[in-house]
Amino acid sequence: MADAPTERTRVRRAKDKARHDREIVNEIFDEALICHVGFVDDGSPFVIPTIHARVGDVLYFHGSPASRMLRLMKNGAEITITATLLDGIVAARSVFHHSMHYRSAMIFGTARIVDAREERMIALEAISNAALPGRWDEARLPSRNEDKGTLVVAVAIEEYSAKVSNKDVGDEDDDYDLPIWAGVIPLSIVAGSPVPDHRLLDGVELPDSVKQFVAAFGGVVGSP
Amino acid sequence: MADAPTERTRVRRAKDKARHDREIVNEIFDEALICHVGFVDDGSPFVIPTIHARVGDVLYFHGSPASRMLRLMKNGAEITITATLLDGIVAARSVFHHSMHYRSAMIFGTARIVDAREERMIALEAISNAALPGRWDEARLPSRNEDKGTLVVAVAIEEYSAKVSNKDVGDEDDDYDLPIWAGVIPLSIVAGSPVPDHRLLDGVELPDSVKQFVAAFGGVVGSP
Repeated sequence: MADAPTERTRVRRAKDKARHDREIVNEIFDEALICHVGFVDDGSPFVIPTIHARVGDVLYFHGSPASRMLRLMKNGAEITITATLLDGIVAARSVFHHSMHYRSAMIFGTARIVDAREERMIALEAISNAALPGRWDEARLPSRNEDKGTLVVAVAIEEYSAKVSNKDVGDEDDDYDLPIWAGVIPLSIVAGSPVPDHRLLDGVELPDSVKQFVAAFGGVVGSP
Repeated sequence: MADAPTERTRVRRAKDKARHDREIVNEIFDEALICHVGFVDDGSPFVIPTIHARVGDVLYFHGSPASRMLRLMKNGAEITITATLLDGIVAARSVFHHSMHYRSAMIFGTARIVDAREERMIALEAISNAALPGRWDEARLPSRNEDKGTLVVAVAIEEYSAKVSNKDVGDEDDDYDLPIWAGVIPLSIVAGSPVPDHRLLDGVELPDSVKQFVAAFGGVVGSP
């Protein structure tokens, strides 16, 4: 019975599974350009898109203190944050077995308003670099007034789940003989050629952050 | 005072605005391949991605009756459905004015479980064709058993909101003199070349639905 799981291996396996899930949650949130924040106001659900960044065990998002969502973000408010990456459409022989390839992660937690300026700047740097890596070092940094005009919310990544759907077409046995096309159409987000602001100073070239982002998202600078 | 709004023009303007918003909500949900459904369970918010379709004034989504979300979808359950299309990243001269180009729509409503098989088939046809237009006429349609294994939820589109963010870079006056690149990086979802199922019968060609989808999403059939 050497192969039977002992309490120790069972625990180790559970830990491995938990570590694995956590890595997937991190990956999905790190790759996603936006997420959706869910919260309850007066008993009703709300779902708002936002940009975000992960710093270790904390997920941050931000906005204007005047926005509806952020007015409702009190310390301790229960929120759920979901990030979804759409990877493809699965066309089966039968309508019933059509599906999507996707990766989705959900974080369940409570809001914490970031009070310390130091942590707020770390969060803003991470959010800025999450959308456009390296941008923080290129752009003018927030002034004291701009910092005051920004509300940053933190959520500890402690309770979470992930779902990865990446299987091949799974049709009913009888259906494989049907002369119906089946397969997967891959989907991805692609960057177009950057459009310079019409007030850009002469001679200012495309920065590394934008060049690298466009390359990472399969675009070509200068393409239409 | 001929230009002063009368009660009638005020009402007409409000109606036009409402009609305009409704058209934008329809457009966003029709273009989005997935949406996120928010609901409250035991006081806590949940946010789940799903595919969907709009048929006139009703939004439909579906799934297995065994799924967590659908087990909680009782008639009258309050739900919020948000669809978000990410159109670009706005890189400003200042970190503070970085933003995204996006279109997002939210529908606030209550769940109605679709009981009549006739309406369920209309919904399934619409959902199937929303992901891959024309697919319903190519694939094997749901059997009685498959129909029984599918739960369809309807939400009346009566209360909704839309937000469209598509403005140029808006920097502070003083910042326009900075030699910092600013502009917009367009983003779009692009289809890759379809990958046929390894059990596809010899001689079965790519169907119109897939060809048209790939063309609509900027892909080229046969590209790597």
